[in-house]
Amino acid sequence: MAMPTVSLELGVRSYSIHIFNGALDRVGEFAYRNQFPEKIGLIADTNGATLYAERVRLSLEAAGFQVSVHIVNAGESTKCLQQVEELCNSLVAKGLDRSSGLVALGGGVIGDLVGFVASIYYRGIPFIQVPTTVTAQVDSSIGGKTAVNLPLGKNLIGAFHQPTLVVIDPTSLTTLPTRVLSEGLAEAIKHAVIRDADMLPVLRKLCDEVELGFSLNSLDQLPEIIARNVAIKARIVEADEEEKKDIRALLNFGHTIGHGIEASAAYGEIMHGEAVALGMRAALWLSHKYNNLPLNDIKSILRLLHSIQLPIQLPQEADETLIFNKTMADKKFHNGQISFILLRKLGEACVSRDISPEDIKEAIHHLKSKPAL
Amino acid sequence: MAMPTVSLELGVRSYSIHIFNGALDRVGEFAYRNQFPEKIGLIADTNGATLYAERVRLSLEAAGFQVSVHIVNAGESTKCLQQVEELCNSLVAKGLDRSSGLVALGGGVIGDLVGFVASIYYRGIPFIQVPTTVTAQVDSSIGGKTAVNLPLGKNLIGAFHQPTLVVIDPTSLTTLPTRVLSEGLAEAIKHAVIRDADMLPVLRKLCDEVELGFSLNSLDQLPEIIARNVAIKARIVEADEEEKKDIRALLNFGHTIGHGIEASAAYGEIMHGEAVALGMRAALWLSHKYNNLPLNDIKSILRLLHSIQLPIQLPQEADETLIFNKTMADKKFHNGQISFILLRKLGEACVSRDISPEDIKEAIHHLKSKPAL
Repeated sequence: MAMPTVSLELGVRSYSIHIFNGALDRVGEFAYRNQFPEKIGLIADTNGATLYAERVRLSLEAAGFQVSVHIVNAGESTKCLQQVEELCNSLVAKGLDRSSGLVALGGGVIGDLVGFVASIYYRGIPFIQVPTTVTAQVDSSIGGKTAVNLPLGKNLIGAFHQPTLVVIDPTSLTTLPTRVLSEGLAEAIKHAVIRDADMLPVLRKLCDEVELGFSLNSLDQLPEIIARNVAIKARIVEADEEEKKDIRALLNFGHTIGHGIEASAAYGEIMHGEAVALGMRAALWLSHKYNNLPLNDIKSILRLLHSIQLPIQLPQEADETLIFNKTMADKKFHNGQISFILLRKLGEACVSRDISPEDIKEAIHHLKSKPAL
Repeated sequence: MAMPTVSLELGVRSYSIHIFNGALDRVGEFAYRNQFPEKIGLIADTNGATLYAERVRLSLEAAGFQVSVHIVNAGESTKCLQQVEELCNSLVAKGLDRSSGLVALGGGVIGDLVGFVASIYYRGIPFIQVPTTVTAQVDSSIGGKTAVNLPLGKNLIGAFHQPTLVVIDPTSLTTLPTRVLSEGLAEAIKHAVIRDADMLPVLRKLCDEVELGFSLNSLDQLPEIIARNVAIKARIVEADEEEKKDIRALLNFGHTIGHGIEASAAYGEIMHGEAVALGMRAALWLSHKYNNLPLNDIKSILRLLHSIQLPIQLPQEADETLIFNKTMADKKFHNGQISFILLRKLGEACVSRDISPEDIKEAIHHLKSKPAL
């Protein structure tokens, strides 16, 4: 069985990402090997609590750790400062202090929330990521970006705080609803188009199985596929941890207009990965306009997104002006310039400063046209 | 006129601390020289707003900055996560983003709150400290410790986030009530006893004037005296930024039992510096017990504290058990050991692991005895 480990090298803040089927039952062992603090707060959401919290708790206790379990509500609304305060109070009540550690068990919401709490609790304590959704496993659990939302915008409050360790168990994906699997695969497809075009056939095969659930054969290959994504993200984070050098920004491919679409929809109406699928179509179209990206390449990506029910066409009634305004609010122009991620070719992204507000308007409008598949 | 500048060297996070009378009107000039972001949120409390916010705003605008002013309530209760959220919302509403900066104008509460907001807003933006109380000028504005309180304890949430610049105007001290001046001087006296015994005569002279207000002659010497304190703190922070090496911990002299006294009192009943004065007496007593600190040295410090109306004796009705429990809750024993700061001699502190819970009980009890002055 594949048991890949990816290392993320950041000097004293380096860490390992272990990916294998059954890893949930060995979190304690890895925590012990990493000399993680004895006193641990294990935080899961109401979904993960039922399925996995008990297994992870037992694994930690078997390795000699003292564990208190803290359950928060599932869903994006949990990523707020009020929840931060409630969680911190609950940690204090259980006697966790500056020499304790946290474990984040769940999807992106839990990872972002717990990572942020770990960054500010007693001015920072270590934490372990145990991601259980595709989005979290291939993307958000890696790289130390943590955040909560403000009423006026997503992820406006946060910190860079790298985990001590990431433990990924791909079997946790088998219990996810198809829609959640698909939205996570959007980020994997993004990794392929910006950095690793050879991964596209691999993902295509996986996407074929999404609706039926993964075959045992696929499950066997999942650790390697996830590791391939993790490695892409890890190399980018190593090169530009705090997104200051136009490298980490490449991961925002499809996210600029994607965020605008997400922010313009009612809460819960569109998932992050779904908005990113639409945002990628817009970015592919602009890549054709500015970098002559071949139409056939675009078609192959759109077909892949479409094959797993990710949206690639905006409904005719969608409010283009609202999406445009939300896109602009999120991504400010400085001296008339915006950093926009385009493809130079399939598998190679770049930061462009050529994109005008007019371009963005046109790209949003283009999303209403029927895609040629 | 004295215009000292102290440098705090922390690699890329190094910064200057400018100290001179009239500095409030030159914040803009220093911000400009430090290439501070053009868009600034200036945060003051309801006290500082009346006296200084307008001067600082004008200074910043004259230097070409775009300034929005945000006023928060004065007082310790402002240091909470709800205020963090309100302040962040108000910054977003004014269009401040990842390329903006903040200015903290006020006492320790404002510095701690704004520093913390700066550390998490858009995952961290730069900020300038403009402290206007003794405590903030000689101590809390230097060194990058930022924090807010939880219902269950003070400063439990926070971050290490160094300012870009600290601008100190000693003339702002002349408008402070005597009690606030005195509590700030407790931290200066602490600096003298842990690192710079030669500063004691200087402080003694200053303390003589507290009740009458500073003379013009003293005002002229204040920048040098504050700089001397700032330099002590700066050297300690340089050696141990995140308090991991038993060096920065020396600044906690008088603070262990002091915090216990502060936490056991009703809100607002005792000021931080007042509790620290009592905590220092307890620590001096333990320094005599363990390090043979001469009784005459202790007497000279107690006399100095007493001369500016700082408390050095606990009322007979004070609840020793409660103070003991609060002290223990704040400072956890690990394997039966606690890090407690003692004096080796006047001007030289050390970390001791010899102090037992019994010692702390006795020291608290000792505070009820009448001091020999």
